[in-house]
Amino acid sequence: MQLSDSLNQLIEALRCQPGIGPKSAQRIAFHLLERDRKGGTQLGSALTKAMTAIGHCQTCRTFCEQPQCDICLSTKRQDSGTLCVVESPTDVLAIEQTGQYLGLYFVLMGHLSPIDGIGPKEIGLDVLEQKLSQGGINEVILATNPSVEGETTAYYIAQLCHKNNVGASRIAHGIPVGGELDLVDGRTLMHAFSGRRVVTQE
Amino acid sequence: MQLSDSLNQLIEALRCQPGIGPKSAQRIAFHLLERDRKGGTQLGSALTKAMTAIGHCQTCRTFCEQPQCDICLSTKRQDSGTLCVVESPTDVLAIEQTGQYLGLYFVLMGHLSPIDGIGPKEIGLDVLEQKLSQGGINEVILATNPSVEGETTAYYIAQLCHKNNVGASRIAHGIPVGGELDLVDGRTLMHAFSGRRVVTQE
Ligand SMILES: [Zn+2]
Ligand SMILES: [Zn+2]
Repeated sequence: MQLSDSLNQLIEALRCQPGIGPKSAQRIAFHLLERDRKGGTQLGSALTKAMTAIGHCQTCRTFCEQPQCDICLSTKRQDSGTLCVVESPTDVLAIEQTGQYLGLYFVLMGHLSPIDGIGPKEIGLDVLEQKLSQGGINEVILATNPSVEGETTAYYIAQLCHKNNVGASRIAHGIPVGGELDLVDGRTLMHAFSGRRVVTQE
Repeated sequence: MQLSDSLNQLIEALRCQPGIGPKSAQRIAFHLLERDRKGGTQLGSALTKAMTAIGHCQTCRTFCEQPQCDICLSTKRQDSGTLCVVESPTDVLAIEQTGQYLGLYFVLMGHLSPIDGIGPKEIGLDVLEQKLSQGGINEVILATNPSVEGETTAYYIAQLCHKNNVGASRIAHGIPVGGELDLVDGRTLMHAFSGRRVVTQE
């Protein structure tokens, strides 16, 4: 049986989703066609819309449909003088879900990885340094992942902080080494925040 | 953190896929936005196209973008005089993947389920009966699932066959009771075909 072109294309396209192999993709395609065409159509529109409408906040770089996100626009958050640096928007989401951090964020959208051509500029560190030099930030919480690249990136940013006389701390306890920040539960994440240590200047 | 509307809609829409819960949907959405916008856009188009372009074959009711599918149009298949009745297009796919069945199909797109208001007409048995009465079919292979509803449906169709003097057989060996036809491997499926029994007339 030759599947129709549109069906083959759909099965192939479904595999862009992490965790969806060829067999799962086929089952999803047939499920939607047989039992949930409305859901499939809605998903098609939602994807098309999201991929074009969702950009990045000009200030913190997280996902945003406006020039600036709600967090960056909040005067309460601005007054906190605290900036948490994370690798990805999912990390912002994980921290916000604890409801206990009330400062600003800066989202790198990655980490330093010279081997892949990802230097300071690629992860927005020029924008971050400008922000640090402008004043208003007293402490930078380095919440990059506890991987080699995450640590290297945190260390690099700590240097930027020192240069601009801004305190830098690194979240510490609770996050399993090699793990991913956004997979950690809220309580562990809050332990990591309260157990943060000042990064000493060399 | 309030997620943007488009992002919330995307996460919600992703859940139309079987096996995708809220956490998986969130991870998929962020993955596509962060690392594979091209894949996300292609999936959006593929879904939109598939949900409108893919209809049903007028003859066998399987998924098809033309009025009739390739199998129904094949004179070799027509000459076989054998018609295999299955519940869903995925069953056709599973049987075709064995490469050993060379007859025609009829796809019920479900099974009899009076409690859900699914009677003979809802699963196309009026179309099937018309086909049987027209001649050209010598044997109907009843390959509905080995569930209570599948057995009931097979029995009902066997009666239609008897009425029209067409032989009816039920696939038997190898398919685990309560299992699903399209999850069985090709060899087991072929055993089930060769071990089919004639359904005796009451
Ligand atoms: Zn922002
Ligand atoms: Zn057909």
